[in-house]
Amino acid sequence: MEQLAPPTLVVGWSPDGALRILDQRRLPGEVVTRDLRTVEAVVDAIRTLAVRGAPAIGVAAAIGLAVATDGRDLPDVERAAAAVRASRPTAVNLMWAVDRMLGVARTAAAAGAGPGALSAALRAEAERIRAEDVAMCRAMGEHGAGLIGDGMRVLTHCNAGALATAGIGTALAPLYVARSRGVRFSVYADETRPLLQGARLTAWELHRAGIPVTVCADNMAAGLMAAGRVDLVIVGADRIAANGDVANKIGTYGLAVLAKHHGIPFVVVAPMSTVDPHTPDGTAIVIEQRDPAEVTHLAGVRVAAEGAAVHNPAFDVTPHTLITRIVTDRGVLQPPYVFAPNTAVLPPPV
Amino acid sequence: MEQLAPPTLVVGWSPDGALRILDQRRLPGEVVTRDLRTVEAVVDAIRTLAVRGAPAIGVAAAIGLAVATDGRDLPDVERAAAAVRASRPTAVNLMWAVDRMLGVARTAAAAGAGPGALSAALRAEAERIRAEDVAMCRAMGEHGAGLIGDGMRVLTHCNAGALATAGIGTALAPLYVARSRGVRFSVYADETRPLLQGARLTAWELHRAGIPVTVCADNMAAGLMAAGRVDLVIVGADRIAANGDVANKIGTYGLAVLAKHHGIPFVVVAPMSTVDPHTPDGTAIVIEQRDPAEVTHLAGVRVAAEGAAVHNPAFDVTPHTLITRIVTDRGVLQPPYVFAPNTAVLPPPV
Repeated sequence: MEQLAPPTLVVGWSPDGALRILDQRRLPGEVVTRDLRTVEAVVDAIRTLAVRGAPAIGVAAAIGLAVATDGRDLPDVERAAAAVRASRPTAVNLMWAVDRMLGVARTAAAAGAGPGALSAALRAEAERIRAEDVAMCRAMGEHGAGLIGDGMRVLTHCNAGALATAGIGTALAPLYVARSRGVRFSVYADETRPLLQGARLTAWELHRAGIPVTVCADNMAAGLMAAGRVDLVIVGADRIAANGDVANKIGTYGLAVLAKHHGIPFVVVAPMSTVDPHTPDGTAIVIEQRDPAEVTHLAGVRVAAEGAAVHNPAFDVTPHTLITRIVTDRGVLQPPYVFAPNTAVLPPPV
Repeated sequence: MEQLAPPTLVVGWSPDGALRILDQRRLPGEVVTRDLRTVEAVVDAIRTLAVRGAPAIGVAAAIGLAVATDGRDLPDVERAAAAVRASRPTAVNLMWAVDRMLGVARTAAAAGAGPGALSAALRAEAERIRAEDVAMCRAMGEHGAGLIGDGMRVLTHCNAGALATAGIGTALAPLYVARSRGVRFSVYADETRPLLQGARLTAWELHRAGIPVTVCADNMAAGLMAAGRVDLVIVGADRIAANGDVANKIGTYGLAVLAKHHGIPFVVVAPMSTVDPHTPDGTAIVIEQRDPAEVTHLAGVRVAAEGAAVHNPAFDVTPHTLITRIVTDRGVLQPPYVFAPNTAVLPPPV
């Protein structure tokens, strides 16, 4: 499994039991890991995107909460949880991880656990959350690897890789597993404006893993497809509605339309925890606008003309009709996608 | 006509007869005009993109050649022409303007003109080239203005505006004319990676002209279209083949596919001089790769991971089947587009 490991630790434990993260603000220029032990440090790391990617943030929050409240009592844990939760209020995975840690803390306290036992329970739960994420990534990789054929040219968008998780990523997991099985392929990484996660992060981790990767601006994907240079598009998902509509990083929807036009398979990879069966379809998903400065400034320098307005949505919605397969930790789904609340959510895997 | 003037002089004459240009390297931060009088200064301005856009480069070369050879003889003009020609070897318009100036110089010299008469002939020819460009822009604007309706949201890519010509632009000319007729509309300007001409230049000139403009990253156009927020896409052209296939700034083709998918008209605006009837279709057009650093670095800072390859084509080709109308200085064309060599090249305007 050595060859499946992410290029370096992204989020986990330091040898002496602190939260260890790879500081992604320094990538791709420098590889710097940091060990965090206080609520303030954990909150700062999440808020400033030192750790990013929904699964990685959830794991960081869980381990960070356990580490920062070592030897404290339940009221301290509750206070710390509130602070961590506020570090990135729109991160569903963060809320979920904090809630899960709080549930364990309250149960332990109600059962009469002292601070030592409480901390042990929290560390154990955080490790479960981390290990589950690693296993989910691995499962998505195993299920999806068969989609990656020898000689394929795969295009991906943003970073849904090892750098976004505690494991081998979501969209990139099938690539890592295929590579470990000896499949040879190459990847086009959309640079992914405005924050350039593709150029900065996806290119970095694939290159470190020995997978040939070529960076292109987002507007170059169509020309590559027309030239017959893309065999598969593979992306992650922020949220999947009950009918299979997918919210993901801005630019995903355009790629899906282009893939359809060129007859190229368009594959989404995400854990089942990304599915929200209570959201009937994509029209119910509210699209958040982000800071205009992400578009108007580059590396701190203003590039856009003053006086112009800015459109900067965080993501877009890809209708299920454009999605060839959804790879989850429980199997590969094909259309029609039906995710129903409180029922068996999985059609038979293909 | 005041309201149709470009926001400031882009390329023309200074009051004392030098070549005056707007230094586009300083936009959008600063509006700096420069007066150039030597071959070295003209060559440097073209090479470093102080002046850019095919028509503007042609006009700058013509005026620059006249100004820099003031009072010189034919051999000096020939030497200066060779130097100006070498400043940007792939610019077809530059070659065309230099050839035209050389033709005038040789004819004048053959007729026995002394240096004074030679210079006068060159200044007159340069002024004709400038005035013709202004008139072509105006004609495209007049012909295309009817496509711009009240309340429309128009999306454009790169900068095919006043900043690329001596007049009111190519793709933006119909917008300026429509605006002068009282039509109210707004524009989305794709930022246009990698060189950001949309964010830097198109947003700047439209805002200066009082037209509401919103900058978006290239990958946001699809989501805008899906949300019903784009009524028309309008772009320029670097080269048009005999069948109507259009080579233009990278990203144009993707927009055309997206426009088709969403049922949005896709309009190309270019002077007839852009048509190359000897190129049968887009497959005959060779796509130039540009410096990888344009993608890997922003404002001088490396953003892309080391070790990754880079794909950086200068343009892409949009097949004629995706183009709703081609607006030229001689009229608005509709499919099928047929541009034949040495015959009447224009089907009846619509």
